[in-house]
Amino acid sequence: MVERIIAAARTSFAHNGWAGTTMRAIAREVDVDPALVHYYFASKEDLLDAATMPPAEWLEVISRTSSVPARGRGEAMVRNLIWSWNQPAIRDALSSILMTAAHEPRTREKLKAFLTASLLPAIADRIEGEERILRASLTASQVVGVVMMRWVWEIEPLASLPEDELVALVAPTIQRYLTGRLG
Amino acid sequence: MVERIIAAARTSFAHNGWAGTTMRAIAREVDVDPALVHYYFASKEDLLDAATMPPAEWLEVISRTSSVPARGRGEAMVRNLIWSWNQPAIRDALSSILMTAAHEPRTREKLKAFLTASLLPAIADRIEGEERILRASLTASQVVGVVMMRWVWEIEPLASLPEDELVALVAPTIQRYLTGRLG
Repeated sequence: MVERIIAAARTSFAHNGWAGTTMRAIAREVDVDPALVHYYFASKEDLLDAATMPPAEWLEVISRTSSVPARGRGEAMVRNLIWSWNQPAIRDALSSILMTAAHEPRTREKLKAFLTASLLPAIADRIEGEERILRASLTASQVVGVVMMRWVWEIEPLASLPEDELVALVAPTIQRYLTGRLG
Repeated sequence: MVERIIAAARTSFAHNGWAGTTMRAIAREVDVDPALVHYYFASKEDLLDAATMPPAEWLEVISRTSSVPARGRGEAMVRNLIWSWNQPAIRDALSSILMTAAHEPRTREKLKAFLTASLLPAIADRIEGEERILRASLTASQVVGVVMMRWVWEIEPLASLPEDELVALVAPTIQRYLTGRLG
């Protein structure tokens, strides 16, 4: 039940924003009494926090990429990205975070903290040298751009590009950022 | 006066969102009678449309990049991007569009139309071959990611990276997307 409430909250925050989301409407969406939503989440802030928690499954996928041999890590990163966005639960959670972070300072600060404390170190895991966090942030910049263009804004031709073509086009960029010569 | 109203609206839509923006608050911000704001903009929708109009100056900068000889276009693109974000008027307008598009379907549709009808063709200008729009969209994916990481979310180390280093790191990616071998 908590999962269904969180899923409905993700959709609502992403599409209707903070102001357009009410705990009453979420309760109606999942067909429960509003008191039950309040039982699990004391406030709309708590519900937002739960809805914009990066999925643990996704961080695990990123971490698995680091165990791929160095020369195949660019391709593995793009394939894992595509796999993640094909999972409805991960896609909805990440979309909701990106869309909510744009206009909710609280979510934006959380996204910054997540990127800095969890995502960049996970990408940089087993990358050599003192530029490892810079390499991870360049990788993130390409990943974020593909996510926005292909999945969030759905801009053609990237939105409908076959998955293997996306890998072939973007993996060399990620590979250079992760292990290649910089600058 | 109209310019000052639009500038205040940009800031408010970007930071407070659609629901948190009122024409009355904009009038107070620029210290005019609300009736004057209503004189120029019949509705909040009209004000949003004006506030999220991509700056003409910025499209001109993109177009100028296309006249740079092919082998220097990656570097020119990144330098022009940095130049643009150093102009307060352009930066505020683009930030406002990105932040508002995340939660306002009307602005998101406008952003999609702008990318598809204006920005991608401007990037693809004087690029050879039938993959020119694909090349432009890959370029846009890297540009959008840098914009989000460095300027919108301000994630380190990208946020404070010296401009010349950003050029040296990202220009080769853009150069490959624009003129290199794909896939």
